Amino acid sequence: MNVEIKILKEFVPSQLILICGLPGTAYIGKLSVDYLIQQLKAEMIGEVYSKYFPPFVVIKEDGLVELLRNELYQFKDESGRTIVFLAGNSQAYSPEGQYEIAEAVLEWAINHNVQRIYSVAAYVTEKTFEAPNVYCTTTTLALLEEAKVNGAQFLDNGIIGGENGIITGLAKKKNVEGVCLLAETHGYQTSTGEFVIDPRAAKAALKVLTSMLTLKVDMEPMEKQVVQMDEAIAKMVEIERRIREEMTASGKKPAYVT
Amino acid sequence: MNVEIKILKEFVPSQLILICGLPGTAYIGKLSVDYLIQQLKAEMIGEVYSKYFPPFVVIKEDGLVELLRNELYQFKDESGRTIVFLAGNSQAYSPEGQYEIAEAVLEWAINHNVQRIYSVAAYVTEKTFEAPNVYCTTTTLALLEEAKVNGAQFLDNGIIGGENGIITGLAKKKNVEGVCLLAETHGYQTSTGEFVIDPRAAKAALKVLTSMLTLKVDMEPMEKQVVQMDEAIAKMVEIERRIREEMTASGKKPAYVT
Amino acid sequence: MNVEIKILKEFVPSQLILICGLPGTAYIGKLSVDYLIQQLKAEMIGEVYSKYFPPFVVIKEDGLVELLRNELYQFKDESGRTIVFLAGNSQAYSPEGQYEIAEAVLEWAINHNVQRIYSVAAYVTEKTFEAPNVYCTTTTLALLEEAKVNGAQFLDNGIIGGENGIITGLAKKKNVEGVCLLAETHGYQTSTGEFVIDPRAAKAALKVLTSMLTLKVDMEPMEKQVVQMDEAIAKMVEIERRIREEMTASGKKPAYVT
Amino acid sequence: MNVEIKILKEFVPSQLILICGLPGTAYIGKLSVDYLIQQLKAEMIGEVYSKYFPPFVVIKEDGLVELLRNELYQFKDESGRTIVFLAGNSQAYSPEGQYEIAEAVLEWAINHNVQRIYSVAAYVTEKTFEAPNVYCTTTTLALLEEAKVNGAQFLDNGIIGGENGIITGLAKKKNVEGVCLLAETHGYQTSTGEFVIDPRAAKAALKVLTSMLTLKVDMEPMEKQVVQMDEAIAKMVEIERRIREEMTASGKKPAYVT
Repeated sequence: MNVEIKILKEFVPSQLILICGLPGTAYIGKLSVDYLIQQLKAEMIGEVYSKYFPPFVVIKEDGLVELLRNELYQFKDESGRTIVFLAGNSQAYSPEGQYEIAEAVLEWAINHNVQRIYSVAAYVTEKTFEAPNVYCTTTTLALLEEAKVNGAQFLDNGIIGGENGIITGLAKKKNVEGVCLLAETHGYQTSTGEFVIDPRAAKAALKVLTSMLTLKVDMEPMEKQVVQMDEAIAKMVEIERRIREEMTASGKKPAYVT
Repeated sequence: MNVEIKILKEFVPSQLILICGLPGTAYIGKLSVDYLIQQLKAEMIGEVYSKYFPPFVVIKEDGLVELLRNELYQFKDESGRTIVFLAGNSQAYSPEGQYEIAEAVLEWAINHNVQRIYSVAAYVTEKTFEAPNVYCTTTTLALLEEAKVNGAQFLDNGIIGGENGIITGLAKKKNVEGVCLLAETHGYQTSTGEFVIDPRAAKAALKVLTSMLTLKVDMEPMEKQVVQMDEAIAKMVEIERRIREEMTASGKKPAYVT
Repeated sequence: MNVEIKILKEFVPSQLILICGLPGTAYIGKLSVDYLIQQLKAEMIGEVYSKYFPPFVVIKEDGLVELLRNELYQFKDESGRTIVFLAGNSQAYSPEGQYEIAEAVLEWAINHNVQRIYSVAAYVTEKTFEAPNVYCTTTTLALLEEAKVNGAQFLDNGIIGGENGIITGLAKKKNVEGVCLLAETHGYQTSTGEFVIDPRAAKAALKVLTSMLTLKVDMEPMEKQVVQMDEAIAKMVEIERRIREEMTASGKKPAYVT
Repeated sequence: MNVEIKILKEFVPSQLILICGLPGTAYIGKLSVDYLIQQLKAEMIGEVYSKYFPPFVVIKEDGLVELLRNELYQFKDESGRTIVFLAGNSQAYSPEGQYEIAEAVLEWAINHNVQRIYSVAAYVTEKTFEAPNVYCTTTTLALLEEAKVNGAQFLDNGIIGGENGIITGLAKKKNVEGVCLLAETHGYQTSTGEFVIDPRAAKAALKVLTSMLTLKVDMEPMEKQVVQMDEAIAKMVEIERRIREEMTASGKKPAYVT
């Protein structure tokens, strides 16, 4: 299995929208999508497995084992749209794997007639700012205007690394509408190299995202919720730290002894 | 051949159980499984080859050459069960290879109607302890209880690296019963980076494992046996050390000149 | 998609010639080919996508997103020949990827009865020189003579790294006529590791190339044009710098969190 | 093309024997096989291409371009046997590639009913010795005895890295007779990391090899010949040095700019 999308229940989407928030700089994408999943009580409908994830399993809170994986959550809104969230605790380990997983998920969405994909990522800056700006890049000029109307600002250069960016680029190539929102953050890292979580940036991104989606989400609990999510994410950050430690250590010891 | 399982003789298992103990931290998995193979006089029935092993061959005691590989050993117990052990002197070199080999072995076992898989690995701690605890993670809550009854303790977080962990995670995904036992160890390494063998941890893991399997194994010779196994494992550790040396050296010289 | 060549419009070439100038040392190949594309007003007819490119997307001047990719431009000259240029802002990330992309493009050209392929690369020297020499290596001795007549000098040893070289080597293997022109340069790098652009070397290479192609191209604007191209290339160099930064940083943070 | 064996002329072998001498420690394998090719005036009959070689092309003495590759040379001896030599200036860049190329060549030989394969490699020791010993490892005990009778000594442990070793291990797995001769050497490297050529070790290996093959080869010109070969090999060592330099440099600059 290079990439396997395991759908857990009958999935009959209507006007499908895909929203991607995999872990990355400052965890902005992950925070945003995980918050929406919580607030909207979205339901897990699928799992994404791949040999391209780091070679680790996780012990969950209930004591059970789990491969590193991504997950698909579904929310059907009042207007009848199906919104699917791509969440998870890992991106692929290798560049090729990042392309392959992003493409597999996008292909799955296209097979279900996806109307548009969104992704949320970080815009790292060293400048000081009062409130974090939200920038965007899209697959069409019309979408760019639409994002602007909803509070996003334009960029005329830059790069986006990882699957949150690649999936938008692949959407462009495949003529699927795509928007990548980039919330301003400083991208601080702890002394051991983990990103510092930036809920303020996530909140700013969410504001634009929900506006574009005309999705009513109570942003009030965000601050409070983030504290609770913090626990979940802190766990993920801890997992990352240990994986990084082991992967780095395995530079000293042979990689085949793990 | 990405992964090739070469079965050496007619294999007609009944109520198949697979037990994995590939080399890893403190060699707990390997020690445990190799000890069971010795005590139960399990018979080699298969070989696992892969291009994902490190690119080395080994000169064996009899002077003959051997690819790095894993091996399958079979033991038929009184109750008619077939227990197969996955042993060997190497794990895959690359992350993708670790997934691929673990999946190939698991698929082979599933094709033979495997009832359950066990694996043994290390739980590295810096805390001091009198006797090493044995922790576990499993694919179902019932199994977790079963492991607890047999002396294992629960964890509510953590990661397990390498094939001993991945095969349990893959079992979960494929709805196969799986248990990963994790024996407490300090994970000490020598100055040249090899793990220090920890037979005490292996013995603790074996106690839980044999209890779960209701398998009668004389644990008395463990200490003594370990000394003998030590020789075999010392050889493997030496092989690892040389491979690591060569792989590191090949950072300086081009990798294609070996 | 390992490599995908997406042709954007009907493509009916005649006496097809392929000219490759991907970014490399001193950007000589890229400068040369981008200049010809500008001067000849060559038309973009295709895009080359691959999972082997670095895992990044680029935000373009118009605000739209784009995968890293290569591009194919077509120019039909007076004599009826079709010249296709292979340009782009990236080479593959992995060695295998470099072979695969070069081979995919060459195969595509062969399927269109390509008559000859040219590529432009750097010849790095520490020697001082007045005007940069242009060296060459080819797939046949006749071509070597032809290159010499047009101002190139012979080499009797050396290596060429990357896709501009590999595609010529693959042409040799597949019995396609191929010429690789190597313009002398010092291969200077900035303190952050980017190559310094060398338009003088590009101009020297272009002189030989256009002579071999009996292609009339106004070289006058080269110096001026380079200043304008400089902007475009400066952008690409900046992209490279950021990608390098992120890729290097991801040595500290886990590669799967990007 | 993962690996492609391009046969250049009709090949009708009889009692095929394959002898492998790819570049490695002290170039013992390469020296041995290249010497036999010269002395026996073996004829090139095939080329081995692969995307697993380092991503470079070589400019040959005649000015023509060549992919890095391996080559097959044929010699038909008086007794009617066909001896094929595997030679070349490179091994695969990645571990998986080393397995794949070795397996492709072995499979090709098996398809031509190969009777036995030999390979020559280095046995690195820090001990001083008068004349270099030649050790061996084989696929059967009978072959071990045969090697001993012809002057090789036994080993009861050790590892062999790279394709010269892997092909013997693969032969064992596929039930093909195989012998790997290991000539004692110090494995000295120059300050820039190249192996120092060890013709004395090659001569010792050749003595055992030709004895096993009952092949009459004038060993007299070895010393002198080596001086001539030295030139060819010095060129290859220089190629290696530049490739290593470029590959190392590309750690500083992004790998995709080459």
